[in-house]
Formats: sequence, C-alpha cells, structure tokens
Amino acid sequence: MSVAVKKIRMGFVGGGEGAFIGQAHRQAAGLDGRFELVCGAFSRDARNNQDTGAALGLCASRCYSDWRRMLEAERALPVDQRMELLIIVTPNHLHAPIASQALSAGFHVFSEKPAALNLAELLPLKAVLERSDRLYGLAHTYLGYPMVWQARQMVRDGVIGSVRKVIVEYPQGWLSEDVAGQGNKQAGWRDLPEQSGLGGCIGDIGTHAFSLAEFVADQPIQHLCAMLNTHVASRQLDDDAAMLFKMADGASGVLIASQVCAGEENPLKIRVYGDKGGLEWRQEEPSSLIHRSLDQPMRVLRSGVGQPWLCDAATRRMRLPAGHPEGYLEAMANLYGDFATAIRSNVDGNVAPGVPGIDVGLRGMAFIETVIASHRGDTKWTELVCPQ
Amino acid sequence: MSVAVKKIRMGFVGGGEGAFIGQAHRQAAGLDGRFELVCGAFSRDARNNQDTGAALGLCASRCYSDWRRMLEAERALPVDQRMELLIIVTPNHLHAPIASQALSAGFHVFSEKPAALNLAELLPLKAVLERSDRLYGLAHTYLGYPMVWQARQMVRDGVIGSVRKVIVEYPQGWLSEDVAGQGNKQAGWRDLPEQSGLGGCIGDIGTHAFSLAEFVADQPIQHLCAMLNTHVASRQLDDDAAMLFKMADGASGVLIASQVCAGEENPLKIRVYGDKGGLEWRQEEPSSLIHRSLDQPMRVLRSGVGQPWLCDAATRRMRLPAGHPEGYLEAMANLYGDFATAIRSNVDGNVAPGVPGIDVGLRGMAFIETVIASHRGDTKWTELVCPQ
Amino acid sequence: MSVAVKKIRMGFVGGGEGAFIGQAHRQAAGLDGRFELVCGAFSRDARNNQDTGAALGLCASRCYSDWRRMLEAERALPVDQRMELLIIVTPNHLHAPIASQALSAGFHVFSEKPAALNLAELLPLKAVLERSDRLYGLAHTYLGYPMVWQARQMVRDGVIGSVRKVIVEYPQGWLSEDVAGQGNKQAGWRDLPEQSGLGGCIGDIGTHAFSLAEFVADQPIQHLCAMLNTHVASRQLDDDAAMLFKMADGASGVLIASQVCAGEENPLKIRVYGDKGGLEWRQEEPSSLIHRSLDQPMRVLRSGVGQPWLCDAATRRMRLPAGHPEGYLEAMANLYGDFATAIRSNVDGNVAPGVPGIDVGLRGMAFIETVIASHRGDTKWTELVCPQ
Amino acid sequence: MSVAVKKIRMGFVGGGEGAFIGQAHRQAAGLDGRFELVCGAFSRDARNNQDTGAALGLCASRCYSDWRRMLEAERALPVDQRMELLIIVTPNHLHAPIASQALSAGFHVFSEKPAALNLAELLPLKAVLERSDRLYGLAHTYLGYPMVWQARQMVRDGVIGSVRKVIVEYPQGWLSEDVAGQGNKQAGWRDLPEQSGLGGCIGDIGTHAFSLAEFVADQPIQHLCAMLNTHVASRQLDDDAAMLFKMADGASGVLIASQVCAGEENPLKIRVYGDKGGLEWRQEEPSSLIHRSLDQPMRVLRSGVGQPWLCDAATRRMRLPAGHPEGYLEAMANLYGDFATAIRSNVDGNVAPGVPGIDVGLRGMAFIETVIASHRGDTKWTELVCPQ
Repeated sequence: MSVAVKKIRMGFVGGGEGAFIGQAHRQAAGLDGRFELVCGAFSRDARNNQDTGAALGLCASRCYSDWRRMLEAERALPVDQRMELLIIVTPNHLHAPIASQALSAGFHVFSEKPAALNLAELLPLKAVLERSDRLYGLAHTYLGYPMVWQARQMVRDGVIGSVRKVIVEYPQGWLSEDVAGQGNKQAGWRDLPEQSGLGGCIGDIGTHAFSLAEFVADQPIQHLCAMLNTHVASRQLDDDAAMLFKMADGASGVLIASQVCAGEENPLKIRVYGDKGGLEWRQEEPSSLIHRSLDQPMRVLRSGVGQPWLCDAATRRMRLPAGHPEGYLEAMANLYGDFATAIRSNVDGNVAPGVPGIDVGLRGMAFIETVIASHRGDTKWTELVCPQ
Repeated sequence: MSVAVKKIRMGFVGGGEGAFIGQAHRQAAGLDGRFELVCGAFSRDARNNQDTGAALGLCASRCYSDWRRMLEAERALPVDQRMELLIIVTPNHLHAPIASQALSAGFHVFSEKPAALNLAELLPLKAVLERSDRLYGLAHTYLGYPMVWQARQMVRDGVIGSVRKVIVEYPQGWLSEDVAGQGNKQAGWRDLPEQSGLGGCIGDIGTHAFSLAEFVADQPIQHLCAMLNTHVASRQLDDDAAMLFKMADGASGVLIASQVCAGEENPLKIRVYGDKGGLEWRQEEPSSLIHRSLDQPMRVLRSGVGQPWLCDAATRRMRLPAGHPEGYLEAMANLYGDFATAIRSNVDGNVAPGVPGIDVGLRGMAFIETVIASHRGDTKWTELVCPQ
Repeated sequence: MSVAVKKIRMGFVGGGEGAFIGQAHRQAAGLDGRFELVCGAFSRDARNNQDTGAALGLCASRCYSDWRRMLEAERALPVDQRMELLIIVTPNHLHAPIASQALSAGFHVFSEKPAALNLAELLPLKAVLERSDRLYGLAHTYLGYPMVWQARQMVRDGVIGSVRKVIVEYPQGWLSEDVAGQGNKQAGWRDLPEQSGLGGCIGDIGTHAFSLAEFVADQPIQHLCAMLNTHVASRQLDDDAAMLFKMADGASGVLIASQVCAGEENPLKIRVYGDKGGLEWRQEEPSSLIHRSLDQPMRVLRSGVGQPWLCDAATRRMRLPAGHPEGYLEAMANLYGDFATAIRSNVDGNVAPGVPGIDVGLRGMAFIETVIASHRGDTKWTELVCPQ
Repeated sequence: MSVAVKKIRMGFVGGGEGAFIGQAHRQAAGLDGRFELVCGAFSRDARNNQDTGAALGLCASRCYSDWRRMLEAERALPVDQRMELLIIVTPNHLHAPIASQALSAGFHVFSEKPAALNLAELLPLKAVLERSDRLYGLAHTYLGYPMVWQARQMVRDGVIGSVRKVIVEYPQGWLSEDVAGQGNKQAGWRDLPEQSGLGGCIGDIGTHAFSLAEFVADQPIQHLCAMLNTHVASRQLDDDAAMLFKMADGASGVLIASQVCAGEENPLKIRVYGDKGGLEWRQEEPSSLIHRSLDQPMRVLRSGVGQPWLCDAATRRMRLPAGHPEGYLEAMANLYGDFATAIRSNVDGNVAPGVPGIDVGLRGMAFIETVIASHRGDTKWTELVCPQ
C-alpha cells in the first residue's frame, strides 16, 4: 500500500515582510509542493520576525530571533520534526557564515547567490561542505528555466555546430537614479561593499549573465577584458559593466551587465552562434527559444509539455501544455524540485543534480574578482583563474 | 502577540495522476501558500486514487474512494480538522452535482468550469448556493491575470473612451487531428455530450473568450450570430466556432474560438477599441498590455510590482518586479488568493470578490446554448437571454 | 549588339500635389525603372495641375487640363511618342469612365481600386476591355507582396493541408473621429456615395481583405453573413464591418475591416489554417511569414533574395538580400514590374500575369454589394454571386 | 508659369548585371524620381557593360568601356547634356581614385562606402574635394532611415537625458562558411586586402555600426578596445569583431559586428541609454523606435507621415502614412533625395545636408585602423585619432 510522502521540512533565514526574494522562495517551494515551512528567523526586527512567522502559519516557538539560535534549537528537536533544509535569503555578507554553520549542524542549505562575499570567504565554506554529507545549492534561478536547458542540450548535441560567438547581456534600469538615497532597501545594502561584496552590478547581475553563458555555451570563460562604470555620484560600487571574453573551446564573446539602462526591466538574454546555426533566449519571454541555421528558416521552439522536439531535460522542467506561460517562479520552483528529489533520493556528493552548486558559486566569485582586476589594470586580457 | 494563521483545509474531487488540471490547481494553491491539502477523492481508479493521495502526503484514511463518501466523512470530522473548501476538477458532467452536495454539506466550492452541463442543471445549483452561506467560485483562470484587470480598469476609467468594437479570439490547434481516437483522454471526454455538454470547442474555450470579452469591455453581449463547424469526421461536437455579436452599451464585435487552428498553442487574445483608443492583450505574453490612442504613440504597459501607472486591482495580482515573468499558474493562484481572503474574512454573499462566481457560470451556459441555437437557425441575430 | 530598351511611356489622371496615392504610384514606377512619365491631367485645379507636371519634369504642352483632352491629344501623337499606359488615381467614381475611354482609345490602363462604383458600371467596362487588345490592371497593392505569393504557393503545394479556416482582418483607426469634417480630403470623398460607391470601410479596405483571403486560400468566398456599422454621426457610409463566410472548397472564416479601431495603423493580416498547419502574414511586418505545423516547431520564413526555401513566385518579387526590408512601395512596384513585362512581351489577353485584373475587380464589387445586402437582411447567409 | 524641373543626369561606375548594390542605387534614385541615368561604365566585361546599359535604356555611345574614358567623354559634352553626378559602386579599392578624378573633372560624386582603402588614400581625396566646388556623398544607407533621425533628435532634445551607455550591434551570418571559395563574388573581393582594405567584417559592416553609434548618440568615440577574429580557415581578413569604447561626452559602450553569426540576416541595432530613458532601433524593423523611460510606460514611436510626435527631420524622410512599411531602398532614396536637393539648390561647401560626407568617411577609416591597432596590441585602450 502507498505510504504518504513526507514533506521536506524547511526553515528560512531572512525573508521577513517586505523582502521580495524571500517571498519568491516560499512561493516557488509552494508551487513545487514538496516542502513544508517549519521554522524561521526572518528578520532582526522582532516584530517583523514574529509577524512574518505568524502570517506563514508558524507557531511562535519556531520563530527564532536569531539564526544561530535557530540552528541550535532545531538541531535539538527530534529527527522527524526538525528542519531538514535551510533557505538563506539574507543580504550577501551572511550567506557564507550561515551556510557553513548550517552544514556543520547537519542541515542541507539552499542559498541565495552569491555564495559568499569573496573567494577568500568561499573557500572555507567549500571545505566545510566537502567534509559534510549535506547538499548545497545556489539560487541561480535563471538556470532553472526549461528553455535554457533546451539550449544547452542543443549546443551539446551539435545542432549549431562548434560554438564561435557568445553574446550575453543583462541590461536593467532600476538603479538609474539614486534609489538607495531615496530609501530603496534593496538598493541600499547592494551598494555597501561590506554587505554586498566588491562587485555592484557585476556581482548582482553580471554573475547571472556569466553563469548563463558558461552553462549554455557549455565551456568556461578563460580570459576577459572588462570596463566598469559608476554613473550615480553617491554610489560606491559599479552600476554598469561590459567586457570581451574568450572561452576554453575557442568561442569568444561579449558580456554586458548594467543597472543604469533606464527603462529596461529584466531582459537577460543570450545568443550563442556556432558554425551551423545560432540560438537566442530572452528571460522576459522565456517560453521561446529561437533557432537560426544556415540551411533552413528560423524556428521558434516553444516551451510546453509534450512537444516531441524538446529534450528531456527541458520537458522535465515544465508543468503546462504549450501556450500556458510559465515564468520566474516556475524556474525557481524547478531548482526546489531538483533539490527535493535529491534530498529524498539520498544522492551522493554535495550537489543536487540540476541545482547550481558550490562550483557555480566559486566561478562566479572568481569572475567578479577577475573583472575588477581587469577593470583596474591596463593590460588587455586578464585570466580568470578559479580555485578547484 | 501574533497568532499563527491557519491554512485553509482543502480537498479535491478529481485530479488523479495524469490529470493536468488537478495538478495545476494544487500548484496554484501552493503558490498562494494559504492552503493545505487534507483529503481527496482523486480518481475512480483505486490505485491511482491512493497513489495520488500518498504522493501528496495524505494518509490513506483521507483518501476517499468516492466523493460522496468524502463529503460525508469530512463532515463528521471535528470542525477544526475537516475540509473547508472543495476543489472540483472532474469532467464537466459532475461539476454541478458535486457542487450542490458540497455546498449543502457546508463546504465552500471552487469548481473547474463549466459550472454545469447546461442551464437546466445549473439553475438548481444556483438555488442551492443561494440557500447556503458558502462561497462558490469558478476557475476562469484567464480572469486572474493582472493585466486583464488593468485593461478592464482602463475601460472603466474611460481611457479608451466609449467602447465600439471588441475582437476576441481563441485559436488552438490541438484537436486538428482525431486525438481522441489516438487515445488522448482529455480530448476523449470533451467530445462526449453527456460528459462535456452540448458545446465542444464553444464550451471548452469559447466560454473563456466570451467571459473575457464581457469582463474587459465591461458590458454584456446581447445578440449573436454564430457558425459552428466540426472538421474531424469521428467527432460529435463542434471543434471550431466564430460569431458576430452586439453588446449592451453599443459595442459590437467578433468572437473566434477554434481547436483546429493547426499549430496554434493557446493564444487567447482580446482587443477592445473605443472612440479614443484601444487595448490589446494576449495570454501567451500576459505581462504586456498594448495601449493605442489617437493622440500619442503606442504604449506597452508591462506587469510588475511598483509600476505607478498600473491600477491597484492589477498590482495586487502581481508578485514580482517588472521583467520577471508571471504566467498561467500565477493567474490561477490569484483566484485562489482571492478565495482565501474571502474565506478568512467571512465575506457576505456567495461570491468571493475577485473570483468568477455563479453568474459568470450562468452567462457562460446561456452563451453556449445561444450559440448552438444561432448556429442551427437561419435568422441572423439570436438574443442571449440569461436567467437571473 | 544590344539595343537600348525603351521605357514605357505613361500618363496620369489624378495624383496632383497633395495626393498621397498618385505620388506612391510614381515612386513605385520609378523604383521599377522601366517607366517614363510623359503626360498627365493631375488635377482639375489648373495651378496644381501645372505645378505638378512641372515638378515632375513635364513640359506644359503635355500637362492637360482634362483627361478627355489628354486621351485625344496623346492619341494624335506619333506612335513612338505617345503615352502607352494610363495610370488612374482619381476618386472612385471616375475609375470606370476613364478606363473605358482609355482602353477604347488604345491605351493600356492601370487603375486604382475599385474598378468601378458598382457592378452595374463595371460590367460595361469589362465588355469594352474584352473587345480591346489592351491590358488592364488594378492596384491591389497587397497582392504584390512577395510573402503573400509565398503563402499562396504553400497553400497550393499542400504544405498546410486542406484549408479549414481563414481569418483575415484589417483594422485601421484613422476614421475614429470626424476627420472629413476636420478637412481631411481623403476622408471626404470616401464618404460620398456618389464618389466612393455604396461601401465605406467595406469598399475602401474590406475589399483588400477579401481579395487577400481569396488569393491566399486559393478559393472563392461563396456565402457570407455581414454586419456593418457607422460610428461617427456625421458619416453616411459604414466605417466598420465584420462578417462570417464560407468558401468554395470547404473552408470557412471571418473577415474584419474597420476604420474606427482607434490607434491602429494598417495591420492587414491573414491567417489560413489547414489540417496540417497554418500560415500567418501581417502587412506591417511584410518580410515574415509564420508557418505553424502539427509536427515541427513554428518557422518564420523571411523574405530575401537567395533563400532556397522560398518559391520562385516570391523570389521574383524581391530585390534585396534577407534582412534588408522591402515594403509597400516595393509591393506596388512589383505590380508595375509585371505590367511592364506584359506590355513589352505582348502577352495575349487583357490581364498582365501577376497583376490583379478585371476579375479581381468584379469579385470585389460583387463582394461589396453582397455585404450590404447581407447587412440589410435578416437571413443568416447571403450568396456571393459574381457575374462572369 | 511653371518651368519643367530638369532631372539630374547621373552616370554609374560599376553596377553591371549581377551586382546587387548597383541595382539598389538605381532603384533608390528611381524611387526619388529626380534622377535620370545618362551614361555608365558598368563592368570591365564588355558584354555585361553593353547589356546593362541597353537594359537600362542607354544608347551604346554612352555606355563606356572604362571609367576614365567616361569622365573624359562626358566632360566633352554640352553642359546641358553631360553627366552631373557620378555614382561609384565598384569594389572598394577604386572608390578613392575614381572619386578624385571625377571631382577634378567637375562632377558631383556619390560613392559607396568606404570612401577609400585606408586613411593614406583618403586624405588626398579630401584635399581634392576641398579644392573643388562639387558635392561628395557616401552611401551610408542606414543613416537615411527616418527613425534614426528621430532617435538622434530625441537624444539632442534631452528626451533620454545625458547619454551613459551605447550598445550597437551588427550580427550577420552570411560568411559563416567559405562562401568565397564556393564562388560568391561579393564575398570574394571583400576578403582581398588590396581590394577591400585592411578590415574584413570591421570594414564592411563594423563601420556602419560605428557611424550609427556616433550619429545617434551625437558624440564621437574616443577610445576603444577591440578583439578581431577570423573563423574560416581560408579567409585572410577578420570576419568577427567586438569592442568596448568610450565616447567624448562621457558615454561608454559596446560595438559588436560579425559575419559569422550563423542564421542572422541584417539586424543592425542600436540602443542608447541616458539618465532619463533609452532608445532602441533595429534595422530589420525600421519603422519602430522604442522609447523607454523612468517615469512612464514603454512607448513605440512608429514611422508615418503626419504623426505629430515625430520631428521634422524624421517626417521629411517618410513617404507614406503609418503602417505602410518603408525599408532599405527608401532609406537610400532619402540620401539621393537630399543629394538632389543640394545639387539643385547650389549649397555651399562639399557636403549635401543630410548626406554622409567625407568626414563620415574619414572617421570610418580612422576607426578601422584604430580597431586593427587595438586588436594587435596588448594595452587596453587605444585612442581613435582622426585627421581633420
């Protein structure tokens, strides 16, 4: 007889009322359906913390005032009650410390990106992770989109031939003005190096573009030549970036990331061209993947369960028939879904298949540091060296 | 001190493994986050029923073999444990009987559309509902999209002036071949009048187009002149429809619904033109609302929390900043969200504000019957009379 | 040795300064390059007439005050000097009388549409034409677009299978207000039945939609059921139309034509669906032809010389490589080009291959009259009978 | 009384049968309508030369076997018969020599781009021009598009505020394979440095992107950092380029030009962002100009005579009402039109207002040489120095 599947018990650090990304994580987990919120330390503001927990149905006793206390208290609970998975949605500087402690305390960790403030902080986390038997994942949400997987598979299958050129761009406009000075909290901590890291725009969204490029082109970036700008006077960190790059298997390309492209929303976009064809995907219209080729008309592959021309990796990440749009939360829910599958099937290693892991975090961190070094230097090409 | 909010306890009839729409309902409810699945009668197939329940974390005792049994058993449970809300995702012919019984037994009901097989069946349900103190809602998911509310508000605010012309179209292609004969279950029951009602395509998707037109243009259709076709030989019901119509406040228009537009996915689309401008919305790209006018360039209003030019009704139905696509499940989750709010706030009456209610069901049913009458007749205009 | 090709000597009736369509005709002829303007009766306003002629390089002696005089005077010139082809770009009521006289006088005629004010006037013109050995063409410019020919060829080749459904629409917005009352001349005569004919919108642009539908679907419309509206109080003729129709080979469809779709420009669009796939073409983006099908992803065929997947009929109507947009004037120039070829090659009959001829005019006229009859009647279907 | 306007008598060097660009020039001139072809030296192939001339209506005596002979012979003709304007549509290496001689012989010159093979060759041409009283223009066709002028005017008017970022891209795909080796003539000479110059892709299309960026952003590029690639083994010159750049008034940006973006047609595109908004224009859909801003929804300005929100400079370059697409030939005809106006109005100086002149040529040449220097060097930034 069928045995009822148990939900995965999860807790949150961060994500109190007013925090967009914490809410998104809960919606994505709810959409997947295999998770149950059992505890949280949502905010350093006691009232916000309690209110958030209560609104989410938590009793006061599992609404902790502090994440350290939460780890300790949960660890003391019976094994079938205590939190299994910790979701970290704090500002950046807390990601690595909390993740290290949580892993050491025996909890799986799913963390907002970046994995840490810098490489120096990330390497110890990596060591902790490798000593543990827990899973660690990073919320690189854009890598959860089905048509991104479809694009990668087509590259791997040689559909566009040998990759020659990659153009990845992420032009946002929301930091065109001094919104931090106008009270926008998300803009505020993002501009504090001690909370955000050394990269502004390049860390916040440049890493998304970077990870997407390496993922779809299926080869690492090895050298780059970068320019950073800060357009708003009161700002400490960069708000605009652009670079040339060369990849390991012969492709070269351009990466653009900016938060001062006034009026732009969130059009992360990638184009990859090989000697036989090219692919184009845009996050604002994520259901369409454009495939151009030398010997046939342009095709538009559309997301949708049951399309025989889509690969398994893509189809498994869809819920609906073609023409029923899925979006950002569904992409994030795909990461949650793969994490759930990995937890329940006791996969080996520390990475949930399908979920960006510590290595994506490491490369992202190395990327930020390389970009800053390149920006400050006078030589053209700077090598991107990533510790293993 | 904050008191933990209780989840709304819901049960399902229908929606066993393999049923797309039941899964979508659970995902939408999970995305909203205020619901908890406590019971179900998912399938007449015992194995499917048990497996579905177990996979969803239900213990066997609340996995009922039969919906009548479920209503009875749940009613016998303590008030703080028993199901509060029944979700009906069965084939059409069961919608009204189950809803009637559930309402009578004291449960709120959220039903897939159509509300009933025909008007004759729906009127008694309406009577039951009016005698009860429960809420009843219909899953007209497309009315949950934020930019549909934005469009309606702009019409109401006179932004496009007095409405003159409405063009609503819903061309699908999935019934271009005899897919029922090829084993497609969803196509199968949809073509059986005793399970689906007298309308094929016109019932299945024509009603979506109809409801959308009346909702956005903010006036009822009063007369219509319809043509139905059945293109696949083995099929009993219509698979293609088109009609002219006239509305109450002077607008006229065209409605197209078809399931044999080979290659089309799900591009429900509406255009409404007034004497000052026009609006255009397309479900496959639901974040954009095009606004044309006589005295300024075309504008594209884009979905996104915090856009000052969007109305409250639209903004309340969004979760994410602009450029982070929301789709079909988010639209359905908006209906769940409004239902949750209504349940928790004990609204008067039988309709949850924001959720299509029995009147939408009635008009849809009257629409189907009027279309069929028009199709069969030789006179040009047939009045759409809807019982109150 | 090569002998210099002689230009085709053409003259204009109508098209004085300020007349958009006359200017477009001259640009199209110039773009083709095989025509030479030798005379004209451009305007009843003597000053306008002389100024127009002078600006176009004509000496005063071939700038005629009156079209009758022009026909007479040109006929009297030596055969190697006199006009060969008359372009008629006057208001509608003059099309047939001038064409008749010109044909009788031995000139080829290329006329703006409609061919006449009504069927009663057109039949005698047809008789004159058939007695002559001259060519007659109608400026149904949209039938000159290469991707329209591509679509028709794909229909003929069975690429989309047997045609089931045709949706053709032509929503303009420029008559949303009383622009005639505001002094717009083009709007002015269009609303005078004695100059424009009995159709307003249905005659002006409905006929374009009609001809396009019959051309691409490659079968005639046999029955229709129409609704006409007049939304601006001061207007005599219809400014808005919609209809259902049935075609000869089993397809049915919808035709929408309106000039009160506020904010719309000129998006004539056709969709044709068969049992294997569908085609979509939109005049405002004329280089793209969308091809959907049941067994492969959506394709976008793009205009451009040298694309091996395009048919000859399409490729012959292109000038530029893919990605170099061609538009309305190029489409019209294609009609001029086919007319030039026919004149120089002395084709048999009265129709220049590739140029819409008298039969397109006849069907258009029968269409207008049938629509008006249908609109006025109470029966659902009215047969479209077209004299041969 | 009105005096007949005389056509401008033009002659061609190059543009024999089979040459796409010569044909385009004749079509553009014909579309404008103020030009008359009177002579040509179309091809070194005598048969092609004679056939081309004859097909264009020239008598054999003005079909010259050689451009030097043509200049001489035409100069000897009476002033009211001889050629006034020479169109140069030869391979690149002949542009400067022919232009110099033609100017010296008293003819106006309209030359295909580039103006010369390199700066060393261009400076003497500039000197010749300045000593003459003739006009010189370059066929930078993309600068003839009306919405490009609209964009530039909006930048100048401060509509998007102070310019911060410019992204210009020109990804083509037609050189993805060794098409020269396969017999494509246009690809053939383009890869010969002695005929094409030192730039391959960067010279052929990179200069278009460069000129467009400087034109729309209304400021010069001062420093750049470039990467060139050659992807096809048999090829001598670059077929792919990308660079970062800094402009004079504080903007920075990215330029991408490639001819190995397999499957791409001709999507030259520019985006310019200022501190208040951004503009986007794409050559493949040239009628639309997207305007984003911080304080209102995205707007799409559409080309069309009579749109009150368009500037004069744009409107003067349009022929048709909105929704009637104009394309590449119309853009080129705008250059011809401005050249005609300048010739007939005897403007001072050597540049026809509205037509790209020698300075655009100089900057383009300096650009190519700077890019190649940057590509070969190891320092990050190379200054773009342009001789005055």
